Amino acid sequence: MEIDSLRKLYVEELKDLYSAEKQILQALPKMVKKASNPQLKAGFEEHLRQTEEQVKRLERIFEALGKSGRGKKCKGMEGLLEEGKEVMQEDMDEETRDAALIAAAQRVEHYEIAGYGTVRTYAQLLGEDAAVRLLQQTLDEEGATDKKLTALAEAINVEAMEEIEA
Amino acid sequence: MEIDSLRKLYVEELKDLYSAEKQILQALPKMVKKASNPQLKAGFEEHLRQTEEQVKRLERIFEALGKSGRGKKCKGMEGLLEEGKEVMQEDMDEETRDAALIAAAQRVEHYEIAGYGTVRTYAQLLGEDAAVRLLQQTLDEEGATDKKLTALAEAINVEAMEEIEA
Repeated sequence: MEIDSLRKLYVEELKDLYSAEKQILQALPKMVKKASNPQLKAGFEEHLRQTEEQVKRLERIFEALGKSGRGKKCKGMEGLLEEGKEVMQEDMDEETRDAALIAAAQRVEHYEIAGYGTVRTYAQLLGEDAAVRLLQQTLDEEGATDKKLTALAEAINVEAMEEIEA
Repeated sequence: MEIDSLRKLYVEELKDLYSAEKQILQALPKMVKKASNPQLKAGFEEHLRQTEEQVKRLERIFEALGKSGRGKKCKGMEGLLEEGKEVMQEDMDEETRDAALIAAAQRVEHYEIAGYGTVRTYAQLLGEDAAVRLLQQTLDEEGATDKKLTALAEAINVEAMEEIEA
């Protein structure tokens, strides 16, 4: 493996995540608005603040590398958010819409878990210790957010089941 | 939550995964070809066979529901595969290309982990026990594939580190 080649891939993957985060920043306020369950709404609001910090971490990494994070559009995230938008346009009741929002959000989280896991490993290989710590911090947050969404999905579903059985 | 509304969402999400799997079936042979590491090549080949079974499981679920799986294009997977194709076009050595292939494959796996986790939960709520079992089986396979890819990425990276240090 050529070190320059890996370093180039590392920067490309970081740019991909930077674009992904920027797109998420645009999408989250709409998700806050569409959510009905107060805990889900609060969860999206908290994740919006977290995402702002995650963007800053990436900017610190780019700065240390002497590179710009701009110039790449993450097509993966574009597709995920496009798909989420489509589902949201369908006619459904509040609880089902919340379930659909959680499904879309978990796809986004899993994209980030895979992406940050990848760049964290590359940073380790390249001996970029400060970046490893920043990327691991974000990775841990994304994992925690995904677990919270699963718990919320189950809570919403239990409520729904009680309604159905009643 | 209206049961009909959840059932509709369940079918939509299943269709999304069916389209995703069909797209993966198209992409995997190209990934086999591009991979250099023999274990990675074999891993993609094995996952191709597994994906064929996963498609059949979805078809069994649609059959039981009396629905067709067709008529939806998974834009999320389309974006992920488009992105993977772009990275593949960049000039890089064999080991870095393998690392990039693993990064793309893990994004795909995580999409499926999120997607199958969602429909499995919906199937539980709807009392679709046979579907729960089939979806859980696929979910377990996707989780195992992701873990194998992480192990391979680390093995390739260790080799690479040894080369860099030599």
